[in-house]
Amino acid sequence: MVEPPVRFGILGCANIARKVSRAILLAPNSTITAIGSRSLEKATSFAKENGFPASAKVFGSYDAVLDDPEVDAVYIPLPTSLHLSWAVLAAQKKKHVLLEKPVALNVKELDVILEACESSGVQFMDATMWAHHPRTAKMKEYLSGSASFGQLKAVHSIFSFVGGPDFLNSNIRVKPDLDALGALGDTGWYCAHAILWAADYELPKFVTALSPEYNEAGVILSCGASLRWEDGKIATFYCSFLTVLTMDITLVGTKGNLRVNDFVLPSKEDAATFYVTSYSRDWPKENNVATDLPQEALMVKEFASLVGSIKGLGSKPEKKWPNISRKTQVVVDAVKASIDKGFEPVEVVS
Amino acid sequence: MVEPPVRFGILGCANIARKVSRAILLAPNSTITAIGSRSLEKATSFAKENGFPASAKVFGSYDAVLDDPEVDAVYIPLPTSLHLSWAVLAAQKKKHVLLEKPVALNVKELDVILEACESSGVQFMDATMWAHHPRTAKMKEYLSGSASFGQLKAVHSIFSFVGGPDFLNSNIRVKPDLDALGALGDTGWYCAHAILWAADYELPKFVTALSPEYNEAGVILSCGASLRWEDGKIATFYCSFLTVLTMDITLVGTKGNLRVNDFVLPSKEDAATFYVTSYSRDWPKENNVATDLPQEALMVKEFASLVGSIKGLGSKPEKKWPNISRKTQVVVDAVKASIDKGFEPVEVVS
Repeated sequence: MVEPPVRFGILGCANIARKVSRAILLAPNSTITAIGSRSLEKATSFAKENGFPASAKVFGSYDAVLDDPEVDAVYIPLPTSLHLSWAVLAAQKKKHVLLEKPVALNVKELDVILEACESSGVQFMDATMWAHHPRTAKMKEYLSGSASFGQLKAVHSIFSFVGGPDFLNSNIRVKPDLDALGALGDTGWYCAHAILWAADYELPKFVTALSPEYNEAGVILSCGASLRWEDGKIATFYCSFLTVLTMDITLVGTKGNLRVNDFVLPSKEDAATFYVTSYSRDWPKENNVATDLPQEALMVKEFASLVGSIKGLGSKPEKKWPNISRKTQVVVDAVKASIDKGFEPVEVVS
Repeated sequence: MVEPPVRFGILGCANIARKVSRAILLAPNSTITAIGSRSLEKATSFAKENGFPASAKVFGSYDAVLDDPEVDAVYIPLPTSLHLSWAVLAAQKKKHVLLEKPVALNVKELDVILEACESSGVQFMDATMWAHHPRTAKMKEYLSGSASFGQLKAVHSIFSFVGGPDFLNSNIRVKPDLDALGALGDTGWYCAHAILWAADYELPKFVTALSPEYNEAGVILSCGASLRWEDGKIATFYCSFLTVLTMDITLVGTKGNLRVNDFVLPSKEDAATFYVTSYSRDWPKENNVATDLPQEALMVKEFASLVGSIKGLGSKPEKKWPNISRKTQVVVDAVKASIDKGFEPVEVVS
């Protein structure tokens, strides 16, 4: 028996929603049922420009999407300051929630969202695409090999891109009332996530922020951070809207290292590469991992598969994904707290 | 008129002296005139095994080398704790000084060495080989391009190798009475130097150490550090004897980035590669820089050329090299001070 596809509603016409709409249409187990925007005209154009099925409904409000009984799940690409209210309302209306990152302004807000999802029995996932690329699983296989990589000792990650003058003037990600975490919440989210992924999602003990740069409204445009764990492992990262596109993870272990230079967005859609140096000969220096679907479609496929199991089989929501989002938010919050305390080390509390 | 070659004396038979002996013989303007060891037998074997000219003298003491009027310059690969006495004595005997790194246990000691060199009018240089590879100059050319790289914002460097059980038991670099700075003085020296090189040798304002690991005698086997400058630029590094061979510099600028994965020792002798991403099309992604001599021979050639100018033309010693050594030592000292202060940020004082 083929399960019916998971029916998505989309809240808003953000730029990133173009990519995720395509992903929903590419994934084998999902479809777009509705889009809502405060402007019906904008939603209509968006649906047309992005090849929505003729059956897709177009609404002039977000509420209408949440009230549509034919919508199983919502994708929420709204500004971060709106996540709390709309994600909670979506969960209360029994919609599964695929939420753009940063998922919340802080972990306190996130906990309200996660509690709403849990009490409604809906799946939560944040829209961090690279986590779903098969390269990510292959890299983890390499890292888990005690003969190939050994014990992890140090991690470094960079994610930066140049927000041009338009971006720095008007993008929601530099507006204190919309995405108050700025580059830390945007590109820093990926660095924090990558570091936690490398550390098997063990939270660090201390986090210290380093030299943020701000815009006139006080939003972070770039910053660094260092993290340390009780076992002596360390990580450092740099996130920025002010420097050229760079997307690095470098991991150093007792027997091997790993480098990837396009971790957020592979330079090709159908394959991605990572580089290792290792005592073990089982791993070539350059490892290419093919994928039949782009990583954003694999993300939608995984999310829709979990939703399908809940709908069709009565399964419980998968806790792995909200747990990863929460730990990432905890690290982002700790960097922010360290900045607020004049760059003192902040003890990480789960 | 062809200048006569600069005549080197070598103090001790350290392993690294094999490589530098070969470099002295490869360089067009230098030769080996003498070697001294506390064991005449060891020095004799060393001279034979490393193809010294038949005319090279073999001495059973370091003093004999310093007293030989046919020696113009000495290469000192002794343990760091012996640098102060032997480098000062060499300078007093009017020998030019090529000194292994770390050049001293701290900047106070280094200043005594540098003052001795200055008052004797002899050239000082530390034996950091990669600084002399033409790749290094080519990378600097890329970094200096405002159209290609823009403004430097973040640097990360890693230099680690696995010291096996023998190394960790008995190498001079893990002995508190010989090389008390451990991995920080050894591999960390290269990271600090690389970061300063990237920052055009401007000292950072603050340095903070991160999670050192020690051996039973309290010598550092690995550690991290973060550095920040007044203009907001940051750098981080990781140095270690405990993780797989990794030799990275990653630089992020407003218009370009640069990555090199074998900065300390290029994987080939006749060419070396660095990678860039840049707005400017003048620089390909992969840049290969050929060299007619290995980097250690280019180091000797540069040192001998400066010595030749002093001897032949009465030139003053070149201050660039002692200045770089001193700034590197200042950063290493600051990391050590931060460790001693419980990982507080240490203000860097030149």
